[in-house]
Amino acid sequence: MTDGAALVLFSGGQDSTTCLAWALARFAKVETLGFDYGQRHAAELAARPRILADLRERFPAWRESLGMDHVLALDILKAIGGSALTDTVRIAMGANGLPTTFVPGRNLLFLAAAAALAYRRGIVNLIGGMCETDFSGYPDCRPAYYEAFNQVIRTGTKDGGIEIVTPLIALRKHEIVRRGLELGAPFDLTWSCYSREDQACGVCDSCVLRLRAFAEAGAKDPIPYATPAVATR
Amino acid sequence: MTDGAALVLFSGGQDSTTCLAWALARFAKVETLGFDYGQRHAAELAARPRILADLRERFPAWRESLGMDHVLALDILKAIGGSALTDTVRIAMGANGLPTTFVPGRNLLFLAAAAALAYRRGIVNLIGGMCETDFSGYPDCRPAYYEAFNQVIRTGTKDGGIEIVTPLIALRKHEIVRRGLELGAPFDLTWSCYSREDQACGVCDSCVLRLRAFAEAGAKDPIPYATPAVATR
Repeated sequence: MTDGAALVLFSGGQDSTTCLAWALARFAKVETLGFDYGQRHAAELAARPRILADLRERFPAWRESLGMDHVLALDILKAIGGSALTDTVRIAMGANGLPTTFVPGRNLLFLAAAAALAYRRGIVNLIGGMCETDFSGYPDCRPAYYEAFNQVIRTGTKDGGIEIVTPLIALRKHEIVRRGLELGAPFDLTWSCYSREDQACGVCDSCVLRLRAFAEAGAKDPIPYATPAVATR
Repeated sequence: MTDGAALVLFSGGQDSTTCLAWALARFAKVETLGFDYGQRHAAELAARPRILADLRERFPAWRESLGMDHVLALDILKAIGGSALTDTVRIAMGANGLPTTFVPGRNLLFLAAAAALAYRRGIVNLIGGMCETDFSGYPDCRPAYYEAFNQVIRTGTKDGGIEIVTPLIALRKHEIVRRGLELGAPFDLTWSCYSREDQACGVCDSCVLRLRAFAEAGAKDPIPYATPAVATR
């Protein structure tokens, strides 16, 4: 535990929820940041306040630590367009070898906005739940990317000292699940599905990855699925 | 002149207008990008279509080259707040040694959005009129900053090849004026003032810098000023 403060990129998914619990175990003050960018899985955004309320209820120590929750609208991603995450494009592999869920520059816009907010809030530790396993599809999930980003921040600010820290970067998905369970992350309230809003579909890439992670971690995913058969494969 | 296409960060000020003329002299296709971020000097934004129309009218060759003009809304800067450029804070030097016009992460957000749009438009040359002389106040106007940003883009994309090019970075302000005059940049239509909307004030930092640049270039600034005495000092 340090006296420091952290700003956690908190989407409401399983990785960022694990990340939030990780930060709460380490920092005296933790603020959270989510983005509303017209994402198809708005259910993820809706999960955020439920997760924060749950953490406050179950962990009296964290009630003190949890500070402001920020949600920034990034309509600009919708304006730039061109991804299955924000448009009605079908989720698949694109001709360029990237999944159609790849939003060019999305992570960079998230990081840039988060750094600006951190600067404004006087917080130097910017925590993100990015994970190298995602590199399979997204080229901006590698340590080299975040090292390069920190270099931009270092050269672009005079007195900021802001640094993005990615505690999950080297973990495999099932290791993140294990870490989250150890930390008390409320996985029952997290949202990962890219396809449905009412209940996780169980068949989209994101659901399949999540279910596999829980299976490999030897744990049962606590959320219900629309296609229960899939959950056990 | 190359066959390539360029996306020019075009605010409507004198530097970005010079930059646009520079790009038009070099690239077969040139698209432009401006940002609406609730800036106090909205007159700058209003100058953009007038400059584009003027270039089309006076340079038949450029009429062909000028492609789409994009304006992206960056309300997020207003939401993050805390700068004299977007708030009602008085323009002055802040306690941290930065002018209160410094918007933390503003350039980074501009660059991130521009890179995302360039990626989407299939354009690799991203042209920005940043200039090291501005380093006096803004730490994100140095070549090292743009080198670091290009490294982020390189590590974060698979097939993008996008690169920010800053043709004015090493020029002094009066050299930019001279370059602009040589290229036929319509300085009479550009806007630089941070304080007024109807007519340039002639006394704010931005007006003073502009007037000094024209004076040192041995040229007369073609725009009218509210405080004409200042224009000749």
